[in-house]
Amino acid sequence: MKQIQGGLCAPQGFRAGGVWCGIRKKNDKRDLALIVSDTVCTASGMYTTNKVKAASVLVTQEHLMKGQCQAIICNSGNANACTGEAGLDAARRMARAAGSALGIDPALVAVGSTGVIGVPLPVEKVEKAMPELLFVLSADYPGHSAALEAIMTTDTRKKEIALEFELDGKPVRIGAVAKGAGMIHPNMATMLSFITTDAAIAPAMLDSALRLAVRRSFNRVTVDGDTSTNDMVLILANGKAGNTPIEKDSANFQRFSAALEQVSINLARAIARDGEGATRLVTCTVKGAKDEECAEILAKSVVGSSLVKAACFGADANWGRILCAMGYSGADFEPDTVSVRFRSTAGEVAVCKGGASIPFSEELAKRVLSQEEIEILIDIINSGTSSATCWGCDLTYDYVKINGDYRS
Amino acid sequence: MKQIQGGLCAPQGFRAGGVWCGIRKKNDKRDLALIVSDTVCTASGMYTTNKVKAASVLVTQEHLMKGQCQAIICNSGNANACTGEAGLDAARRMARAAGSALGIDPALVAVGSTGVIGVPLPVEKVEKAMPELLFVLSADYPGHSAALEAIMTTDTRKKEIALEFELDGKPVRIGAVAKGAGMIHPNMATMLSFITTDAAIAPAMLDSALRLAVRRSFNRVTVDGDTSTNDMVLILANGKAGNTPIEKDSANFQRFSAALEQVSINLARAIARDGEGATRLVTCTVKGAKDEECAEILAKSVVGSSLVKAACFGADANWGRILCAMGYSGADFEPDTVSVRFRSTAGEVAVCKGGASIPFSEELAKRVLSQEEIEILIDIINSGTSSATCWGCDLTYDYVKINGDYRS
Repeated sequence: MKQIQGGLCAPQGFRAGGVWCGIRKKNDKRDLALIVSDTVCTASGMYTTNKVKAASVLVTQEHLMKGQCQAIICNSGNANACTGEAGLDAARRMARAAGSALGIDPALVAVGSTGVIGVPLPVEKVEKAMPELLFVLSADYPGHSAALEAIMTTDTRKKEIALEFELDGKPVRIGAVAKGAGMIHPNMATMLSFITTDAAIAPAMLDSALRLAVRRSFNRVTVDGDTSTNDMVLILANGKAGNTPIEKDSANFQRFSAALEQVSINLARAIARDGEGATRLVTCTVKGAKDEECAEILAKSVVGSSLVKAACFGADANWGRILCAMGYSGADFEPDTVSVRFRSTAGEVAVCKGGASIPFSEELAKRVLSQEEIEILIDIINSGTSSATCWGCDLTYDYVKINGDYRS
Repeated sequence: MKQIQGGLCAPQGFRAGGVWCGIRKKNDKRDLALIVSDTVCTASGMYTTNKVKAASVLVTQEHLMKGQCQAIICNSGNANACTGEAGLDAARRMARAAGSALGIDPALVAVGSTGVIGVPLPVEKVEKAMPELLFVLSADYPGHSAALEAIMTTDTRKKEIALEFELDGKPVRIGAVAKGAGMIHPNMATMLSFITTDAAIAPAMLDSALRLAVRRSFNRVTVDGDTSTNDMVLILANGKAGNTPIEKDSANFQRFSAALEQVSINLARAIARDGEGATRLVTCTVKGAKDEECAEILAKSVVGSSLVKAACFGADANWGRILCAMGYSGADFEPDTVSVRFRSTAGEVAVCKGGASIPFSEELAKRVLSQEEIEILIDIINSGTSSATCWGCDLTYDYVKINGDYRS
């Protein structure tokens, strides 16, 4: 398995592109993306569990019901959420505009939206931009890059990856993008992420690979505890790699799943690192839990705690807040079996053993916690052998600044 | 029912006091409080649901098992949490020190602690301070006030109240204090609050009045989503008012309950208003929910959302975040039946109807949201008639500052 260039266009038979259509007032960034496969794809999606679902989520769920899709159209600058019937109509018009431009059934088009909630979507701007969007579609890195730019909002970094591995001696590729920096606390699905692959894989297997990968990646990220109305992960598989189609849980399925998980974790980490206002990526690994779910709940509670996040910002080894966050997580564990260490490129320091304080160098701890990537390592004894890793970021002045007046 | 002076010492037969014993390094604030009834009280307590419980919580739970208590000793500057066996021993020694100074059974002493987690409690400082603490005990407002000061940590305002009402034509009083500004997200119990009353009431009725009052007050406050290891609400009733003892659900019980609820709500609001770094008290009322629990979950999710809190700081009428927070709360409601208004001393502005945008004056909204107390009013139609109010505060730069380096 190796990392390659090309992003969404790395797999064979995919084109992408992005333009500025005017949904965002300023034309300093593209705001409309299109991702297209030459042929109909096997497709699977996971969506926000928020009861308030954006129109794009509802329409895409409807369109992907049969496990097929050929194109994704996605705008930024407007979430098309809390927009009522007019919003649903706008999302359907986006699919129709893309469908007729591409000469395919609109039901084969998935729709994504991200941006401010509660503002009517000026869908006519999307329709007007279709000729230009069709014109700029390309099967190379610039096409991918323009599409990625067009789905970003408060993101400050591009979140992209492509991997290559072999199935039946044939190279298979997965390309992917994600956006997300705030309103990030995925629950069963996540922020926007679009994944392309040329693997040949049956719908049920694609679905199960996606579910597993999302659980171990996007669903283990939190930035601010707010689960968005627009979260969506879509994967399109067009089969052009020519491998024997994956129909069951085989060695090939395991290989594909592992690659998809690596892709997803890479993007999940990138989202946490790019959390609104964040200065540090915080990774928490819990080992020795009685089961994976328990480890996951504990690690996620730690990276989600406002107090732990603020302490990370201040590079303050306030480990009591970590035990506190574990304690209110609802997961089953005995507090006096817990050890805590901090680790980064500056070294490692143990701060808690048996649930209580141990002597440590405050100076070393400060140095360890002052790095851009810090790890919180939690070991539980006498409970089990399961582990989980979750990702988050620190809570900073800039998070407050960015969100104090997002709309203006 | 009228508000009176005297705080904890307003009810007959209670004395209180506070001293600086040296747990806090600086002697600019008292750090050890004692609250005593002349006679043994009927008592009830509610405690943190955090799995990691401070030693003081464990010892107090043990001591209050029989529903009796005569004194409360409480320190600030050290939470005595995550301190192992030595911590339990220290909490027991606090009870013994107070018991022998007062000449009462140590099992009649409740113990409270608040401050940094994971640092051994220097209990010998408590023991040494007992003679002085005994000396300063008084049955007046200064005694109450010194005790209150001694339990405060990052609090910037005193949280105190006393009420008087009549039972059987006799004046009955309730006095109370609370502390709490951060690590506030009570779950079945809360931050520290101590309540005294001279009402005569049976243990079971006292317990049920406390549970109801806490549910509708402290449990509806959130500052940062972190449920502390040390939360505790204690009520001591010494019966000196001379009313016919309340033994069952009667008119007198309802009157007592209503007074206790008013006391608790007053303190809960004070805690939210004094949330770490807060500039605004945010009150969210949900009406028309199918049941009270549903209304409570929705209102609490709204005041707990980091994004709503940041928008309140920026006085930004970003109502989409309110619907988003309702949507991920897990409560049952239909998004398209929701209306949202903002209200404050500057006026009222409706921003959302039927789950979607309605035209409103941004200028008026800004003015309404720029006040120190703002209300988010949510109406749900065609669902039910239940309502609930929850309290929180805005998320500000200062929250990050205070918690970025709390220990130093």
